[in-house]
Amino acid sequence: MRQTPSLAAQRTPVSVLGLGAMGRQLARCLLAAGHPTTVWNRTPAKADALIAQGALRARTVADAVAASPLVIVCVLDCEAVHQILGPDGAALSGKALVNLTSDTPERNRQTARWAAEHGIAYLSGAMLVPPTLLGRPEATILYSGSHRAHTEHEITLKGLGGRAPYLGADAGTATAYEVALLSLYYAGLAGMVHAFALAGGEGIPAEDLTPHLDAILGHFPSVAASMARDIDTGQYSGDADVLAIHTSGLAHIIKASQGHGINTDVLRAVKGLVDRAIAAGYGDAEFASVIEKMRE
Amino acid sequence: MRQTPSLAAQRTPVSVLGLGAMGRQLARCLLAAGHPTTVWNRTPAKADALIAQGALRARTVADAVAASPLVIVCVLDCEAVHQILGPDGAALSGKALVNLTSDTPERNRQTARWAAEHGIAYLSGAMLVPPTLLGRPEATILYSGSHRAHTEHEITLKGLGGRAPYLGADAGTATAYEVALLSLYYAGLAGMVHAFALAGGEGIPAEDLTPHLDAILGHFPSVAASMARDIDTGQYSGDADVLAIHTSGLAHIIKASQGHGINTDVLRAVKGLVDRAIAAGYGDAEFASVIEKMRE
Repeated sequence: MRQTPSLAAQRTPVSVLGLGAMGRQLARCLLAAGHPTTVWNRTPAKADALIAQGALRARTVADAVAASPLVIVCVLDCEAVHQILGPDGAALSGKALVNLTSDTPERNRQTARWAAEHGIAYLSGAMLVPPTLLGRPEATILYSGSHRAHTEHEITLKGLGGRAPYLGADAGTATAYEVALLSLYYAGLAGMVHAFALAGGEGIPAEDLTPHLDAILGHFPSVAASMARDIDTGQYSGDADVLAIHTSGLAHIIKASQGHGINTDVLRAVKGLVDRAIAAGYGDAEFASVIEKMRE
Repeated sequence: MRQTPSLAAQRTPVSVLGLGAMGRQLARCLLAAGHPTTVWNRTPAKADALIAQGALRARTVADAVAASPLVIVCVLDCEAVHQILGPDGAALSGKALVNLTSDTPERNRQTARWAAEHGIAYLSGAMLVPPTLLGRPEATILYSGSHRAHTEHEITLKGLGGRAPYLGADAGTATAYEVALLSLYYAGLAGMVHAFALAGGEGIPAEDLTPHLDAILGHFPSVAASMARDIDTGQYSGDADVLAIHTSGLAHIIKASQGHGINTDVLRAVKGLVDRAIAAGYGDAEFASVIEKMRE
């Protein structure tokens, strides 16, 4: 994994702060692409494997910041970013800071204001990818904030995820997309676990259910496109898949789940949204109409 | 749409009871394939358009049952099936009854016992497809129950959905798959609506979010396969995407949603499952481990 000096000399030095599962994988991608890579973590032992692969250990945050024109931070939340980098704002002046930490859009905007006060080229990134897929051409990381930082470091950033679109100057935008998209991700994961739990209750092994999941997953892209049109136009009329049918379907799932002692909190919450929309007059409307009663 | 007599003569006569969105589309598919198609609905007017397309109107359930060796019923639930067909059990003797009504697996088994008492070849079907896609080669309808009915009418059934696997003699099995798969479907739909609501709160139109949904939807098949392995083996150890990270991500989404006045019932229910699993010691485990605290 150790790079030849000639290759490393062509690549931008990068410092990575925060060596959780994502941070470690980011550092591995940078090393693999030949970047001189400096790493720091509050618990230093997490850097050991990366050092063995050729990374440089920074003893302090200040050392990590000094080592590279591009600093990537990936920690628990924006509060942790401020705890770690707050004292080194002046040292970051003129450098690019790429924040791949998940938090709310508003907290990212606060971090962007702090960065602006110190003359830091601040770019916020949203990794729509599990750690194991980082670095691949098809991995998506969305960016917003400093256009300069995105342009100057685009080649480096594309080594972390081949799809690296720039979404605008508002540092909160990438995170806004992230929280929106992750709400689909987590609801989907919970739905999958529920599906496996209910199948298991009926004596169906998970591996027997899996081939049939495609019948559902395969519909999602076209359902999403249709839902987007409904929501943008505010027109939810459908003669087919209407809420009055869905509440009945949900009732069957909930009843079957309860019969097997399976927790129904998630599906009862979904049914609650459907029933609120029906009560508001959307019984003959498409599923997308529940959005009208979700926004209070 | 009216078929020539020679073609119709080759096709099995079929009666369709229940002309909701699904039933009407089933009848349309049968007519298009050249089956002499008899239709009945409690509210007769719903049959008018089908009659104009060549369907035969049955004045009573008994007339509909008498008209065909294959009777398809698609109504609100199994209770409605019994209300409609209960008095005509004897007339159905020796015929095939395909029940495409959604309900619980247990209710389908009850209906199967009633059918067995009357010598009816009872086949339960689960339509994993919206009405508009019925009849297509890629549309999936799962069947279980009478093997004879599935074998004898396989060509007819494949005209309703090209993928028509037979899952076994237990009439509840198809419905067991259905409720399991629909739990993923509904959780996914709710997640999509939440994603669009949250994007909208941030000023992002649904059509701008849609292209990025693929980054999430594209992961689901591999996530499902990995989850199935974890669940079947009971091994949830992961060094990457662990529950301790997920609860933090969910907290950010919930906070961002609340900031825009968006209902968070579904995502708080998901976080509740995650947090229960963490409390039980699964903080360093994969998402699939939440199943251990869903089954009470």
